[in-house]
Amino acid sequence: MYEVEVKVRADRDRVRERLAELGADRVDAVEQVDTYYDAPHREFAETDEALRVRRETVRSDGEEGDPGDESFAELTYKGPLVEAESKTRREVETRVADGEAADAVFEALGFDPAATVRKDRERFALEEFTVTLDAVAGLGEFVEVETDVETEGDVEAAREGAYEVLRDLGLDPDDQIRTSYLGLLLAADGADHAEGEGESESGDE
Amino acid sequence: MYEVEVKVRADRDRVRERLAELGADRVDAVEQVDTYYDAPHREFAETDEALRVRRETVRSDGEEGDPGDESFAELTYKGPLVEAESKTRREVETRVADGEAADAVFEALGFDPAATVRKDRERFALEEFTVTLDAVAGLGEFVEVETDVETEGDVEAAREGAYEVLRDLGLDPDDQIRTSYLGLLLAADGADHAEGEGESESGDE
Repeated sequence: MYEVEVKVRADRDRVRERLAELGADRVDAVEQVDTYYDAPHREFAETDEALRVRRETVRSDGEEGDPGDESFAELTYKGPLVEAESKTRREVETRVADGEAADAVFEALGFDPAATVRKDRERFALEEFTVTLDAVAGLGEFVEVETDVETEGDVEAAREGAYEVLRDLGLDPDDQIRTSYLGLLLAADGADHAEGEGESESGDE
Repeated sequence: MYEVEVKVRADRDRVRERLAELGADRVDAVEQVDTYYDAPHREFAETDEALRVRRETVRSDGEEGDPGDESFAELTYKGPLVEAESKTRREVETRVADGEAADAVFEALGFDPAATVRKDRERFALEEFTVTLDAVAGLGEFVEVETDVETEGDVEAAREGAYEVLRDLGLDPDDQIRTSYLGLLLAADGADHAEGEGESESGDE
């Protein structure tokens, strides 16, 4: 399976209005706090890997019978690009009962927390696309349009479709940002992280 | 808190009979399959650490309303001895939803599965002690007697109490084995693992 994803800077309020006009369905709203680790024995920026512990809180929608906010933690490893064209990479993921314990295991093993990405996300379904409105701490607001396709041959058409969705939302595909939030944060973080890590896509959301 | 634990080789059937005579309560029976990892950047045998992914299956006792066998996976890091006298060490542990994913994360990061310890355990409660009958693949049968005490000053008395339990079970405290199952397995494994790892207690159960 191939994930096609395009991302641009955008004002969330304006896009939310357009989504309502287009009849998109609101899926959920979550908060994600992601800790990315540096390895003691490898330069992930060079090997194009990422190790992440995520805390996600699914926001209650306040309706009757709603169980309230629900939180979980998740451990994720992302491997280097398997195939550059389609940007596919190996991803291994499991929920963990205790996110602090997962952090503590990696820190005890010599992995250092390199950066934390905090964001509020609202997800909408629009035809075969997921439209995500992100407010990323320290970076601002973004809109992502993504979809999955079965074969590499469908990637190009899906990307064109995602661009079309962006235009429908009043946004310009030419503003596409290919750098991950992690990359953007590390690049903004100053010279000590600036050599190349901003180009890494392993931190993609 | 301090864990006091003594272990000897023993025939499980004979000890199980003695436990019944002494009025011990059977707690549960589990199967544990533990994968211990070598680190790519440290010699755990030298640093006296351990990294383990455990699969545990709690055996159904076959009673009405019993949910049947239940399995879970657990990630554990054990640090070096904090204090040699009482043999206390830091332990960080969390359940993980997908044990295979946890294995895959560590293997992708360059950690190698060093040894697998498989055992069937039956646990009994006898006064303030837990008595565990272990059948360890490749090693044979063992009995562990353990209890927790609040202060270091209570450790010696608790150890004497554990020895007394061993005697009540028809066993000899002088047969105590201080090496972990992991250490015993690695020592039995031959020369490539024999230099010191057999002495490590980090793999203790």
